[in-house]
Amino acid sequence: MAGNKGNKRIFTAAITGSIHTPSMSPYLPITPEDIIREVVAAYEAGAAVAHIHVRDPITGQPNADQDIYRKVAVEVKKQCNIILAFTTGGKLGEPVESRVKVVSNLSPEMASLNAGSLNFALFHVVDKIKEWKYEWEKEYLEATEDFIFPNTFKTIRQYLEIFYANNTKPEFEIYDLGMINNVAFLLEKGVIKRPLYIQFVLGILGGAPATVENLVYLVQTARKSLGDFEFSVCAAGRHQIPMCTTSLLLGGHVRVGLEDNLYLEKGVLAKSNAEQVGKIIRIARELGIEPATPDEAREILGLKGIDKVNY
Amino acid sequence: MAGNKGNKRIFTAAITGSIHTPSMSPYLPITPEDIIREVVAAYEAGAAVAHIHVRDPITGQPNADQDIYRKVAVEVKKQCNIILAFTTGGKLGEPVESRVKVVSNLSPEMASLNAGSLNFALFHVVDKIKEWKYEWEKEYLEATEDFIFPNTFKTIRQYLEIFYANNTKPEFEIYDLGMINNVAFLLEKGVIKRPLYIQFVLGILGGAPATVENLVYLVQTARKSLGDFEFSVCAAGRHQIPMCTTSLLLGGHVRVGLEDNLYLEKGVLAKSNAEQVGKIIRIARELGIEPATPDEAREILGLKGIDKVNY
Amino acid sequence: MAGNKGNKRIFTAAITGSIHTPSMSPYLPITPEDIIREVVAAYEAGAAVAHIHVRDPITGQPNADQDIYRKVAVEVKKQCNIILAFTTGGKLGEPVESRVKVVSNLSPEMASLNAGSLNFALFHVVDKIKEWKYEWEKEYLEATEDFIFPNTFKTIRQYLEIFYANNTKPEFEIYDLGMINNVAFLLEKGVIKRPLYIQFVLGILGGAPATVENLVYLVQTARKSLGDFEFSVCAAGRHQIPMCTTSLLLGGHVRVGLEDNLYLEKGVLAKSNAEQVGKIIRIARELGIEPATPDEAREILGLKGIDKVNY
Amino acid sequence: MAGNKGNKRIFTAAITGSIHTPSMSPYLPITPEDIIREVVAAYEAGAAVAHIHVRDPITGQPNADQDIYRKVAVEVKKQCNIILAFTTGGKLGEPVESRVKVVSNLSPEMASLNAGSLNFALFHVVDKIKEWKYEWEKEYLEATEDFIFPNTFKTIRQYLEIFYANNTKPEFEIYDLGMINNVAFLLEKGVIKRPLYIQFVLGILGGAPATVENLVYLVQTARKSLGDFEFSVCAAGRHQIPMCTTSLLLGGHVRVGLEDNLYLEKGVLAKSNAEQVGKIIRIARELGIEPATPDEAREILGLKGIDKVNY
Repeated sequence: MAGNKGNKRIFTAAITGSIHTPSMSPYLPITPEDIIREVVAAYEAGAAVAHIHVRDPITGQPNADQDIYRKVAVEVKKQCNIILAFTTGGKLGEPVESRVKVVSNLSPEMASLNAGSLNFALFHVVDKIKEWKYEWEKEYLEATEDFIFPNTFKTIRQYLEIFYANNTKPEFEIYDLGMINNVAFLLEKGVIKRPLYIQFVLGILGGAPATVENLVYLVQTARKSLGDFEFSVCAAGRHQIPMCTTSLLLGGHVRVGLEDNLYLEKGVLAKSNAEQVGKIIRIARELGIEPATPDEAREILGLKGIDKVNY
Repeated sequence: MAGNKGNKRIFTAAITGSIHTPSMSPYLPITPEDIIREVVAAYEAGAAVAHIHVRDPITGQPNADQDIYRKVAVEVKKQCNIILAFTTGGKLGEPVESRVKVVSNLSPEMASLNAGSLNFALFHVVDKIKEWKYEWEKEYLEATEDFIFPNTFKTIRQYLEIFYANNTKPEFEIYDLGMINNVAFLLEKGVIKRPLYIQFVLGILGGAPATVENLVYLVQTARKSLGDFEFSVCAAGRHQIPMCTTSLLLGGHVRVGLEDNLYLEKGVLAKSNAEQVGKIIRIARELGIEPATPDEAREILGLKGIDKVNY
Repeated sequence: MAGNKGNKRIFTAAITGSIHTPSMSPYLPITPEDIIREVVAAYEAGAAVAHIHVRDPITGQPNADQDIYRKVAVEVKKQCNIILAFTTGGKLGEPVESRVKVVSNLSPEMASLNAGSLNFALFHVVDKIKEWKYEWEKEYLEATEDFIFPNTFKTIRQYLEIFYANNTKPEFEIYDLGMINNVAFLLEKGVIKRPLYIQFVLGILGGAPATVENLVYLVQTARKSLGDFEFSVCAAGRHQIPMCTTSLLLGGHVRVGLEDNLYLEKGVLAKSNAEQVGKIIRIARELGIEPATPDEAREILGLKGIDKVNY
Repeated sequence: MAGNKGNKRIFTAAITGSIHTPSMSPYLPITPEDIIREVVAAYEAGAAVAHIHVRDPITGQPNADQDIYRKVAVEVKKQCNIILAFTTGGKLGEPVESRVKVVSNLSPEMASLNAGSLNFALFHVVDKIKEWKYEWEKEYLEATEDFIFPNTFKTIRQYLEIFYANNTKPEFEIYDLGMINNVAFLLEKGVIKRPLYIQFVLGILGGAPATVENLVYLVQTARKSLGDFEFSVCAAGRHQIPMCTTSLLLGGHVRVGLEDNLYLEKGVLAKSNAEQVGKIIRIARELGIEPATPDEAREILGLKGIDKVNY
C-alpha cells in the first residue's frame, strides 16, 4: 500500500482550526501573523504540510476570509516550501458555497474535502471553560448541539469539479465507516480519481471515537474497499498522540496541531504547533521513521508543485 | 447479554418505509388498507413487531399523516396484538417537528429514534427504473444526492423527552460507529435510559455498508461502549437475508420487510412482507431459534403494553 | 476471491472421523459398509466431497488400515462420482509416517494436510458419557489431556512431496492464526503451490474457538496473508451449523458430518451424515446458494479427476 | 481492566532466552556474570522484571542448570530488588520435567508458563548466519524444522500445582487464539486462579504473526474470554518495539530484551538489554506512561514478595 515512501512519513500540522476558541488556550493562533509564524515553526520542526484555517484577527472567530487566506499563503511561501492544505470545512455553520472558494482563489496544491455529513458537536465542552474571553465563543459551542456538518454527495461532487479544475489534490476527511464507502462509491462512478489521500479524523462527538480498535478497523476496511491509498490520522484532544502513533505503526502519516488538541501532555498546554510536531517526530524516530520533506511529501502524494499555485 | 430470551428472537416487519417508490414493485403497500393487511399477514407469519410508515393513498408518496397512522393502528389492534413501532424518521425531507408527532398522538409502545445524522442517498437507483408510475418519484429519489437525514443531539434530546413522557420505548436506529458513541454519550449524561434497544441499519448509501465484518464490528463495539442491550438488524436490498441471518448467529433479533428490500430472492419480487418473514423464520428454525410472540417480545424489550397506548 | 464459482458451493461430509467414539452415538459409522453407505447417502443429499477416516470394524477404534481405505474407495467409486478426500490426520497418536500412506497408496484427488501442531484435547467430554461400549474409548479420550497433534514444518514438507508426486490436492486444515502464517511461509518458500484450498477447523480444545468473530478474523487474515484461495469451514459440536452458515455468508464452502458433530439439533442425534448435509443445504438455498456437483467441485478446486486415482 | 495501575506500566527485560545463539550477536549474554550484569543494568534503565534463561558458560548453549539459576538469582538479589521471572520453557527440546524444576528449587515470585503447544521454528534463520562460533548452533536451529514446543493440558496442570504450592505467579505465555481459550478453560475448571497475568508472544514462526491487527484482536478476545487480567507483549525481531508500543497504547505492559530481538534499530545491534529498555521507556514517556518500580509491579501483579523466595 505504501508506495515507495520507504521509512518516510508526512507530518502535518493543523495550525488553528475552527473548533477551539481563544478562551481555551492563550497559544491558539488567531491573527494572520500568528498563523504564519506557527506554520514556519512547524515546518522547522519537521512538518511537510500545514492545514490552514483562518480567523478574524480581532475576535478570534473562525472565518473563511479570502484575503487572510491569501496573506497567509503568500507570506508562508516567502519563508519556506511547506505544502499548504486549506480547509474546505470552514467554521461550523459556514455556507457550503463559501467553504470551497479558497480552492478557486488560491488554486492550492491540496485542500481538505469532507467525505460525508455527520453531527459535529462541541457543546459538551462548554462546562469546562470557566471564563470566556469573547462573547461569541459560548454560543458558538452551544449551538453545536443542533449542528450537522453538511457534506452531501452533491456538495462533494461539486467540490471535486472545482478541485480537479485547479489540479488541487483532495484530502478526504473520513469520520466513520460510511464515509469510506462514500469515497468507494464516487471512485467507482469516476467522480473521484486516483491516487487517493485520506485523513482519518477520530474522536469528534458525532463520528467514530478515537480508539486503536476503530483506527485498525477503518484502515482495514479502507484497504478492502479502496485498494491503494495513502492515509494520515488525526484525533481530538488527549487521543492525538496515541492515535498518531498508531497510524505510524500501521504505515500511515500523521497530523498533529492545535486544531485537534491544545495540550502537549496531560495538564500541559502546548505552546506551539511545533511542540506537538516535535513530540510525534521523537516517537517516529524511535520507531525508525523519518519525516518527509515537503518535496518528498509532494512526491508521495502526487501534488502539482508549489510553482503551480495561485499565490 | 441476551437477557432471558432463550432461543426466542423478535422478528420485525418494516411494512412499507419511505425509501421505495411505487414504480419499484407492484407489491409495495400504499393505502392504509394495504398496510393493515400486510401487518396482519406478517403477524400471522411470525412477526412480533411491525415498523410503520404511511403513504398518501392516492400518490403513494411517503408522509406523516396522523389520521392514517391512527387508522392503521386502530384497525391492526382490532385484528391482532402485534407491537406497532412507528417511525420518527418520516419521509426524506420531512420537518423534524412533524416526524415525532406520532409519538405524542398515539403514545405507542415503541417508535424508532435515529441516533445521528448522515447522508441518506438513493439517487443512484434512479437509472434502474425504466418506467415511472408517478411524477414525484424520480425527483424524490434524485433529490437525495443533496439530502442529509437530520438527527442532531438536540433533536434526539427533544424526541427522548416526548418518548419518555409517553413511556414509548425508543428503538435507536444506528447507521455507523459514531452513532453507537452518540448513544453511549447520552446514556452517560442520563438523557437515555436503560434498557436499550438498538436497530443496526446497514447498507444505506451514506452509512456503514452491509457486510458480515461491519455487523460483527458494530456489535462488538456496542458491547464495549453500551454494556447490556438488545439489538436487531436490518439491511438494504439483497443484503437483507444475509445480514439478518448474521444477526441471528450473533444473538440478535431481525427486521425484514418491504421497506428494506423488495425481493424475496434474486430476481423475484416479494409479494408480501409475510413472505420475507417466513423466509427468515425458516432459516432461524434451522438454527434452533423460534419467533417470540408479541407478548414475549414485550417482555424481552420491556414495553409498557398494548393497553397503555392511545389508539 | 471466489473464482468463478458463482452461487455454487462445495458441501463436504466428514463421515466418521477419529474423535467420536461408539458410545457417543449409535449412528456413528464403524464398518466399511457403514462408511460406504453414509458416503453414498451424503452424495445423494448434495455433498460433493466426503472426508474419509476408517475404523476397526470390530472395536470401532479409529485406525489407518490401508485395506479398509481401499475397500471404501473402490466401493464408493462404483456407486457415485463423489470426491473422496482422505485424512492424513489419522487417529490421535497415529505415527506420522503411517498417516500419509493413504496418499501414496490410493493417489486420491484430495487429502487433508494439517497445517501445524496444537494440543488436541477431548478429555473434558469423558464425564458426559455414562456408559461405555468398548474398553478403549475412555482411555483414548482421557489420554488427550497429554496429547499434541504433531504436524511440524518437516512433516508438512515431507507430506507435500508425497501429495504433489501423486497430484493429490492438499486441503490445509487450519486451527488457528499461526497456521495461516505457516501456509504463507511455505507458499513464499515455494514448498506449497497454488491454487490453495483451506479448511478452517474451529472449536477444538487447543485451537481457536468456534465464534463468528474468530471465523471472520481468520478469513480476513488469510485474505491478507495468502491472496486468492478457496476455503471451507467445519466446527465442533453445536457450533457446526452456525459456523457453516457463517462460512456461506462469507463466500466459503462448508463441511458437516458426524466427525464434527453427532447432533442434528439440540438434543436430537443425527441419524446420518446425510441429515446434516440436508440441513445446511436448506439454509444455503434460503441464501440463494446451490450445492456444487462433484464435477463442479473438481473445477472449483482444480482436482486431477477421478480417472487419475489409484483405486 | 487496568486495575489501579494508573499511568504506571511494567517493563520486563528478557535477558538472553534460548532462541538466539552466540554467532548472532557478540552482545548476547552467556555466562552467569553476563546475565547478572545485564539484569542489573536493565533494572537501572527502568525494568521492573527480568525474565531469566541461563546458558552453558563455555558453549553458550541454553540449558536449565539449577546451580546457574541459583547463582544468578542470589547475586542479582544482592544488587537490586528487581523481580526475577524464570522460564519454564527452557531450551528447545528440554524435557518437560526438568523445565519446571527452577520453580520448586528457587520458589521465585514469578515464572513463565506456556499456555499450549505449537510448532516453534527457527530453521529459516540459518541461512542468514555466515559464520558459526560453535558447532551446536546450526544443528540446534535446523532441528526446529521438526520441533514442537510441548505444553499439553496435563503439563500445564502439573506445572500449576508446583507453581501454586510455591506461591509463584504464573505468567501465561500466549502465542495464539487457542491458548487464550486454554486459559479460559482451565480458569473455568478451577485449575487456574485469578488474578491473571498474560504475556502475548508474537512473531514466532508457528504462532500468531506480530501485527497490530493480531495484537488488537488477541487482546479483545482475551477481554471477552477471561474478564479481568493484566497483560504484557513481546515480539520477535524487528517487531519488538512496534508491538511493545502497541501494547502501551492498549493499556498493556511490555517485554523487551535480547531474548526477543538482538537489534536496537535497523542494522544496529543492541549492545545491552538496557538499551532496549531505555528505548521503549522513551516512547512510553512521550505517551505519558512511567515505568513501575519493582515494588509497584509486585502490587500490580499481586506477587508474594522478594522475602518469600528461596534464594
